[in-house]
Amino acid sequence: MKNFNRLVELIKSKKSFLCVGLDTDINKIPHHLHKFEDPIFEFNKHIVDATSKYAVAYKPNLAFYEAKGVAGWNSLKKTVEYIRNNYPGIFLIADAKRGDIGNTCEMYAKAFFEYMNFDAVTITPYMGVDSVKPFLEYPDKWVIILALTSNQSANDFQMLIDKNSGLRLFEKVIQTAMNWGTIDNLMFVVGATKATMLQDIRKIIPQHFLLVPGVGAQGGSLEEVAQNAITSDCGLLVNNSRQIIYANSGTDFQQFSALEAQKIQMQMEDLLVKNKIL
Amino acid sequence: MKNFNRLVELIKSKKSFLCVGLDTDINKIPHHLHKFEDPIFEFNKHIVDATSKYAVAYKPNLAFYEAKGVAGWNSLKKTVEYIRNNYPGIFLIADAKRGDIGNTCEMYAKAFFEYMNFDAVTITPYMGVDSVKPFLEYPDKWVIILALTSNQSANDFQMLIDKNSGLRLFEKVIQTAMNWGTIDNLMFVVGATKATMLQDIRKIIPQHFLLVPGVGAQGGSLEEVAQNAITSDCGLLVNNSRQIIYANSGTDFQQFSALEAQKIQMQMEDLLVKNKIL
Repeated sequence: MKNFNRLVELIKSKKSFLCVGLDTDINKIPHHLHKFEDPIFEFNKHIVDATSKYAVAYKPNLAFYEAKGVAGWNSLKKTVEYIRNNYPGIFLIADAKRGDIGNTCEMYAKAFFEYMNFDAVTITPYMGVDSVKPFLEYPDKWVIILALTSNQSANDFQMLIDKNSGLRLFEKVIQTAMNWGTIDNLMFVVGATKATMLQDIRKIIPQHFLLVPGVGAQGGSLEEVAQNAITSDCGLLVNNSRQIIYANSGTDFQQFSALEAQKIQMQMEDLLVKNKIL
Repeated sequence: MKNFNRLVELIKSKKSFLCVGLDTDINKIPHHLHKFEDPIFEFNKHIVDATSKYAVAYKPNLAFYEAKGVAGWNSLKKTVEYIRNNYPGIFLIADAKRGDIGNTCEMYAKAFFEYMNFDAVTITPYMGVDSVKPFLEYPDKWVIILALTSNQSANDFQMLIDKNSGLRLFEKVIQTAMNWGTIDNLMFVVGATKATMLQDIRKIIPQHFLLVPGVGAQGGSLEEVAQNAITSDCGLLVNNSRQIIYANSGTDFQQFSALEAQKIQMQMEDLLVKNKIL
């Protein structure tokens, strides 16, 4: 349980289970950064410097970098290297939502675990275990499988009821996928906007870490998430992107981001104390 | 039906419905290409020049480029531009299997339809319509939704039976997603290794184009695919990657690739004639 314990220790030492989503959009970052050669990297650097005290993880969303093509991939690589070099203990998630056949996923694993030194990658489960296995070959890395997402149309398929087991699709995904790895290399994405279903999920996976998006701009509540899904090891990484990174667009934007991150960290510290984790 | 008709005309004029998968792996390309500054682009250029007479579409698989990071994205961009400039009518598919919330998919759409001028992108349906809508805002572009994939673990979830409708998940995906667009901007991925299920799929979508991987290295049969799923407009793009692009590793590798592509094109021409499409 090396990976699992390392993450729990990180959470305890920082009194936080905050993941900051680096969904960096060139059209939303402060205007004065546009004069830099690589405004996206410059923005990320400032955000990370300002919030690293309050966060245990960063989660760049690949789409925002791919939209800028080669230059975007370059900004992403520089961001990952900057975080690795300056904040070595931080947990780094590639929010890529990939999923393909085995030989293709080997290539994605190379991209995210070798070319870029991420700790974890998000995976979509539609194609089954083939999409996950190649990533689990890396002993120190994690796979984070989409189970119940925070968006409205999550209901299109994730709520279908499997005739044989009586489980909803997202529960069936969790119940099946939990056997592909262990609590030491598998997590699941569960949206905060579906907080009441977190209890059902905890019945299937009482210990696994959950990556929880949807707190903040998407409307989910941190209190509710903790109430329904926190474990004795915390077992949660709660993501916030827009509320923190786009807190302000002035020249001192990063100070506003720091305040937002600190506010969330303080709420998290309270929850960790209340649940006797600290 | 501008997009649909354009594709049907392309198929008729080339007497082929072959899509060549550019799954270009630096470790599998002929050794003599390693001396070039960009071996992956060099390989793709040779493959495209040699096979363009026999193919209607090319489908780079993003993973193979991302594994090389910034340099890989650069090779991909150059490949797309090379095909656009030299073979203007060709249909270009980004095999990306993306899927995310709306604001993120807008970014992926920018990456594949603006930054790179692809005609279509493959999408995984797990998160529902949010993952598809932003791509359909582009009037001349296509979304290709994963329905039934060609890999072994497709069975993990795609075969689950929805309690309410009695449909298998892949059928439910098709039945739901067919209403998100039209036959002019939506296709579905259906693996050739599941040829007998193609008949069931054609009952739901008698006209939509299907992108069919899994012929060749993965064991699917072209005859069977056509028998079960060809329409009066063809309605098929059949992909082959490894059998064509890695046909030989000598200095004249591209001539072997051309022969493989021609062999498949001739089988396709027979099938088009037999089915009175030509």
